[in-house]
Amino acid sequence: MTPTISQRGQQMPASPIRKLVPFAEAAKKKGVKVYHLNIGQPDIETPKAVLDAVRHSDFKVLEYSHSAGNESYRRKLVTYYQRFGVEVTHQQIIVTTGGSEAILFGFLACLDAGDEVIIPEPFYANYNGFATEAGIIVKAVTSQINNGFALPDLSQFEAQITPRTKAIVICNPNNPTGYVYSQEELETLSQLCLKYGLFLFSDEAYREFSYNGAPFSALNLKGMENNVVVMDTISKRYSACGGRIGAFVTKNQALLDATMKLAQARLSPPSFAQIAGEAAVDLPSDYFNGIKAEYQHRRDILVKLLNEIPGVYCPNPGGAFYAIAKLPIDDADKFCQWLLESFSWENQTVMLAPATGFYATPGLGRQEVRLAYVLNAEDIEAAMQCLTQALYVYPGKTQI
Amino acid sequence: MTPTISQRGQQMPASPIRKLVPFAEAAKKKGVKVYHLNIGQPDIETPKAVLDAVRHSDFKVLEYSHSAGNESYRRKLVTYYQRFGVEVTHQQIIVTTGGSEAILFGFLACLDAGDEVIIPEPFYANYNGFATEAGIIVKAVTSQINNGFALPDLSQFEAQITPRTKAIVICNPNNPTGYVYSQEELETLSQLCLKYGLFLFSDEAYREFSYNGAPFSALNLKGMENNVVVMDTISKRYSACGGRIGAFVTKNQALLDATMKLAQARLSPPSFAQIAGEAAVDLPSDYFNGIKAEYQHRRDILVKLLNEIPGVYCPNPGGAFYAIAKLPIDDADKFCQWLLESFSWENQTVMLAPATGFYATPGLGRQEVRLAYVLNAEDIEAAMQCLTQALYVYPGKTQI
Repeated sequence: MTPTISQRGQQMPASPIRKLVPFAEAAKKKGVKVYHLNIGQPDIETPKAVLDAVRHSDFKVLEYSHSAGNESYRRKLVTYYQRFGVEVTHQQIIVTTGGSEAILFGFLACLDAGDEVIIPEPFYANYNGFATEAGIIVKAVTSQINNGFALPDLSQFEAQITPRTKAIVICNPNNPTGYVYSQEELETLSQLCLKYGLFLFSDEAYREFSYNGAPFSALNLKGMENNVVVMDTISKRYSACGGRIGAFVTKNQALLDATMKLAQARLSPPSFAQIAGEAAVDLPSDYFNGIKAEYQHRRDILVKLLNEIPGVYCPNPGGAFYAIAKLPIDDADKFCQWLLESFSWENQTVMLAPATGFYATPGLGRQEVRLAYVLNAEDIEAAMQCLTQALYVYPGKTQI
Repeated sequence: MTPTISQRGQQMPASPIRKLVPFAEAAKKKGVKVYHLNIGQPDIETPKAVLDAVRHSDFKVLEYSHSAGNESYRRKLVTYYQRFGVEVTHQQIIVTTGGSEAILFGFLACLDAGDEVIIPEPFYANYNGFATEAGIIVKAVTSQINNGFALPDLSQFEAQITPRTKAIVICNPNNPTGYVYSQEELETLSQLCLKYGLFLFSDEAYREFSYNGAPFSALNLKGMENNVVVMDTISKRYSACGGRIGAFVTKNQALLDATMKLAQARLSPPSFAQIAGEAAVDLPSDYFNGIKAEYQHRRDILVKLLNEIPGVYCPNPGGAFYAIAKLPIDDADKFCQWLLESFSWENQTVMLAPATGFYATPGLGRQEVRLAYVLNAEDIEAAMQCLTQALYVYPGKTQI
């Protein structure tokens, strides 16, 4: 008798970003150049000092590290957070296998199956996957493109709260919108968390990519010491996505104790990339200036060119390296597939992520796409030319 | 209001192996030398060629890999499995973050919360942790030290089967017993899996460490193509525990599809250690001969010296690098703590893992300890001298 897979296995959402990959591969096989604005894989080189730290390491046995990560790395991270005015001890940091594992740990340690988490949509699609794994329910509050995806009104959050609500997730700076929540917005959210006894999970993967001053870390919210968990990662910060090193940071001791047991079950985070992460904290202080200037330059070009296309609207994102644009199209999923399958201009096309995958509410985001400005300015310009041409001829174009 | 952590967070079992660590640290602070036979961290050096592959890598961006792992590595693993007569394609392999993630993936993709898995006890304690994370229930069938922990009679398995039973887990060669299941034992289990439509999860982390010929891989069980999942890892094989690279191998296409979505949610396995894993497959074919001879030598010494201690019984394990011994003591947890806290002989003591942590049935294993022979022969001899002396003076010694 053939066994059947589980309901949750069947319910796991397919990645909305990766589902178009076969169409991109087919386009490339036809000789079409594809500009990838669909995925947050930075093209910027990993700092040489970071890779060299691994290449010059001289240990003889690739041992398990401490389940919470090497103490030397955690102590180094303490100094990293101090730069942002965040005071944590190395015992309040658990090194994780990417930011992904930090999110999963938070879901598992704070919520039981059937519990609910509230997330402003559009949101990072993999939150859905981890929620399915943990058996928890995502309730969305909708942010609006018209105000640049600012934090929805508190009443919208409150309307979603039930006795099963255990946490709110924010991503700041935001993937996929690029919005940077202000200190005031976070303080408003805090009141709600304190009133209802909710955790606040703050995914701060893009902390450094904020073009109007450093974003306010949720770890600095007063009175929220037992409510806040920061999910972090070296992936975007140092172009080190493949390292799979993140961090789970909280001052809640009961939560740390439970999360340590999750960490012990999987033994340890990857050793090589902990060496890389430790070296990264020692990069010269001007390292991010150059990177940030480059991303800001790309953003400026992208947003300007997008808004020059008739019928397109793209708010100016304050952080991360994503933008969401509204296009004059019938259906973003169809359009993004069509771009790869049926369109090319001067033998080039562009790959975008349909925004539908970032909304939990069915039907939302059908005219929106996410663009990751992870290509150099020249390529972004070429990609925007492709998009302009595509919108002239796309059969599903809507009235402007 | 302070939020409370989840029930499953509270229920996560603490690692039975790591809970004695503070006592070992205190002993070391007093200047006592501690022989670590408690944990499966091999002392054998990671092959230089494996570490050099990482050190000599020359990429510029530490990118995400494919969610299933680099195709070049998966193709290389195909040739690795061929050496054991196992025919799989690279699409039937998902590279995981250690064997740990392969086990978690199996639990999540094959079982729903409340479903049951049957495991012969004593078993690898972290199965409990992953079961708690997945909300599934572990039912144990007890194997016996008297027959070297052979597979319990099929009737014992059958007695545990309910409508919620979805899978059987075996670890072969076994951690913590060192037992190597025969082809016949596995074929017997297969009949049960086919009769009741159960998955067979076969944790083959210790495949190479088998002292009487290669163990039979569950992937070669006839008619079981849709039932078998092999959980694998490079950790022990190449002394590469810190790499965090494993594999989830199955021919069940529906299960592969679901597991790929779990893999996509966490983006990719670690990149550095995939390079190490790929290089490891190219090690000269005699690599394991030396390693195996060394472990077999250690086992022979350990088992001989154990059985020479009055009142001690240790069956001769056929594989892995563990042995379980029965000691003339009242309580293994108390004894192992006492060894660190209150005993030393010539300023030395030994750290063992109480077997209670490997049994699901309360009360079992109270006179048993697990010993990992991951130290050189000389240290094993010294450790056995300590154990001998300790058993002379331990206040909770039982009548022999």
